[in-house]
Amino acid sequence: MDYNRIFKAAIDRLHDEGRYRVFIDILRTRGQFPNAHCFGGNGPKPITVWCSNDYLGMGQHPAVIAAMEEALHTVGAGSGGTRNIGGNTHYHVELEAELADLHGKQAALLFTSGYVSNEAALSTLGKLLPGCVIFSDELNHASMIAGIKNSGCEKRVFRHNDLEHLEELLAAEDPATPKLIAFESVYSMDGDIAPIAEICDLADRYHALTYLDEVHAVGMYGSRGGGISERDEVAQRLTIIEGTLGKAFGVMGGYIAADQNIVDCIRSYAPGFIFTTSLSPVLAAGALASIRHLKVSDEERRGQQASAAALKAKLADAGLPVMPSVTHIVPLLVGCPVKAKRISDILLAEYGFYVQPINYPTVPRGTERLRFTPGPTHSEAMLDELTDALTEIWGRLELELRQAA
Amino acid sequence: MDYNRIFKAAIDRLHDEGRYRVFIDILRTRGQFPNAHCFGGNGPKPITVWCSNDYLGMGQHPAVIAAMEEALHTVGAGSGGTRNIGGNTHYHVELEAELADLHGKQAALLFTSGYVSNEAALSTLGKLLPGCVIFSDELNHASMIAGIKNSGCEKRVFRHNDLEHLEELLAAEDPATPKLIAFESVYSMDGDIAPIAEICDLADRYHALTYLDEVHAVGMYGSRGGGISERDEVAQRLTIIEGTLGKAFGVMGGYIAADQNIVDCIRSYAPGFIFTTSLSPVLAAGALASIRHLKVSDEERRGQQASAAALKAKLADAGLPVMPSVTHIVPLLVGCPVKAKRISDILLAEYGFYVQPINYPTVPRGTERLRFTPGPTHSEAMLDELTDALTEIWGRLELELRQAA
Repeated sequence: MDYNRIFKAAIDRLHDEGRYRVFIDILRTRGQFPNAHCFGGNGPKPITVWCSNDYLGMGQHPAVIAAMEEALHTVGAGSGGTRNIGGNTHYHVELEAELADLHGKQAALLFTSGYVSNEAALSTLGKLLPGCVIFSDELNHASMIAGIKNSGCEKRVFRHNDLEHLEELLAAEDPATPKLIAFESVYSMDGDIAPIAEICDLADRYHALTYLDEVHAVGMYGSRGGGISERDEVAQRLTIIEGTLGKAFGVMGGYIAADQNIVDCIRSYAPGFIFTTSLSPVLAAGALASIRHLKVSDEERRGQQASAAALKAKLADAGLPVMPSVTHIVPLLVGCPVKAKRISDILLAEYGFYVQPINYPTVPRGTERLRFTPGPTHSEAMLDELTDALTEIWGRLELELRQAA
Repeated sequence: MDYNRIFKAAIDRLHDEGRYRVFIDILRTRGQFPNAHCFGGNGPKPITVWCSNDYLGMGQHPAVIAAMEEALHTVGAGSGGTRNIGGNTHYHVELEAELADLHGKQAALLFTSGYVSNEAALSTLGKLLPGCVIFSDELNHASMIAGIKNSGCEKRVFRHNDLEHLEELLAAEDPATPKLIAFESVYSMDGDIAPIAEICDLADRYHALTYLDEVHAVGMYGSRGGGISERDEVAQRLTIIEGTLGKAFGVMGGYIAADQNIVDCIRSYAPGFIFTTSLSPVLAAGALASIRHLKVSDEERRGQQASAAALKAKLADAGLPVMPSVTHIVPLLVGCPVKAKRISDILLAEYGFYVQPINYPTVPRGTERLRFTPGPTHSEAMLDELTDALTEIWGRLELELRQAA
């Protein structure tokens, strides 16, 4: 049994398809985001980051840094245990109360990541509801797919944001069958938004529970940063809202918010929650400060939306194939993994602009893209420089331009 | 469909069995560990922590705190992305090199937790090896069980640390079948140790890969803290070593160390690695400082071992049913979830001693226990006070004492 040959072949397949991933080694410069440094052959080099999910720059916010520093000095580095065995600190308790309040739910539950939130919550819900059928948007995130798979439930995949298809699938099941509709608010690779209210209407009609992933929306939308469900005033209609502390809130970790009984069930039955060291109290303290700030401050959200709108307009004006997006995400279609990587490489090497190519399995093959996330600290001049650089590269690589908008 | 009734019934089952978990809300006091505070009805109350997995108190170590503070001020709170998309900082790169060196392997890979390490690595390995059969110790941790289940491989469970049974199962398979033996070094709820060298002998004989979970041993055993595999000088014989940054290293996160090709495969194919925001650079910086310290300092390990040995002797002398353990873990058998909880409640309420009852599903039913982890900062007087308290409670609840040792 030549194990090494098998592992080597698995790596070779990625090289052959042009989607072997090379991680760019960076250090951000606090207080100067989106400026950072990139480590390579010739020592650190200054770069501009264009692909961070720290959308609002909260990972650099003085209130967040101060809260983390205080926790570090008050209680130390790690929690030292699972939530049940020594790892339940007062920071965790306060943070869960804050998150429950953010989404107008009775309770919330922290996980070590958004990935784990989705995997643990969906797999446990499915196991607790005998015979449950889960209805899943075809573009749902890998972590939701993992959770649904591990629930052991029957799965029905509905076409992306397609209400008619969803209703058709719901109607085809026995009315007595437990049902759960799992979907996202903002789809992060395309930047479109789910019709949440209409999905809730269908859930009411067919007596289904709803599970909404708001990881790319919390902190970003709604007057207090409660996500699209807050903006659209539908939070109370959703059974479970899932979010992350690692994107707009700038820290790390994930959570769900729901009724007390549901949170208690997941708390009590999910292996991915029970058997893991809890979030560092330092992270919990930082997330708490970030959420509290974004509940009352709208400045970061407005700055980010303005920056994204400006970049979309500039790219479209230059005839670059910016994909339709109604959110803060700015995807630029390339359609080939090798070219997407090549453009990214030129941007970094020649312009000092860091944006990662997005290839399969993150997006479907043939829709490979660059995905820009301009934030409140990207200046107008930076947006222009990026647009000019992309125009030059598009010409150099003889890629197609559209009719300028 | 009355969903709430189903969720309510699931919670009621836990109450009925006496294993509904109440998280004790604590705040440790940095620099004064194991002293902490507990939040309850009447405001914070001072307690002594007896159940932390921050075995060596490294979560409070000045070098760790200083490294985290520096990272916080240099780069900020979170990484802002997946390892592939903006979240690969120089701290991650350095930490992986340090971990590879710790275990004498070519490469290492970070995960957000030890749970995710096991789930992601085992499930991905299994998927990459067509027809693989995984041999799993019956007491393996929930995260390994999840990884093996999600690999889709056939599983053969061998009796705990039973070499004959393992060989019997290995011999029963076709020699051409890919095989993986998954086990732990220190089993954390019993405190016993696997015969690693002998399991490697079997792996050689039957051409199996080996996967060793060292989460309760890294930092704790071996002259540089490389775990039992370092102490027993067998690290180079193991295919994959898995560890955590959240126990003896005092921070948070998990990792694997292995050959470059294997690490590259898991890096490239594991959804639980790919699709998640990377570890906060602040945590990576803290873990790096902790590992570097424990590579050269033996003082914490010696202090911890002395403390554990002293407590075991005191409990045995008092006739308390301390379970056999050859490690730093001190388990005390109760055998009933209700009584285990009752003892824990009395210890906290009347003595200010915090130790969590360990009930099903963490241990098999009927083996419910208290699990003490005395560290280098628990004083001789503290050990005596704990022993006296337990003796008093054992008498009060009319529990059986053994013949004093």
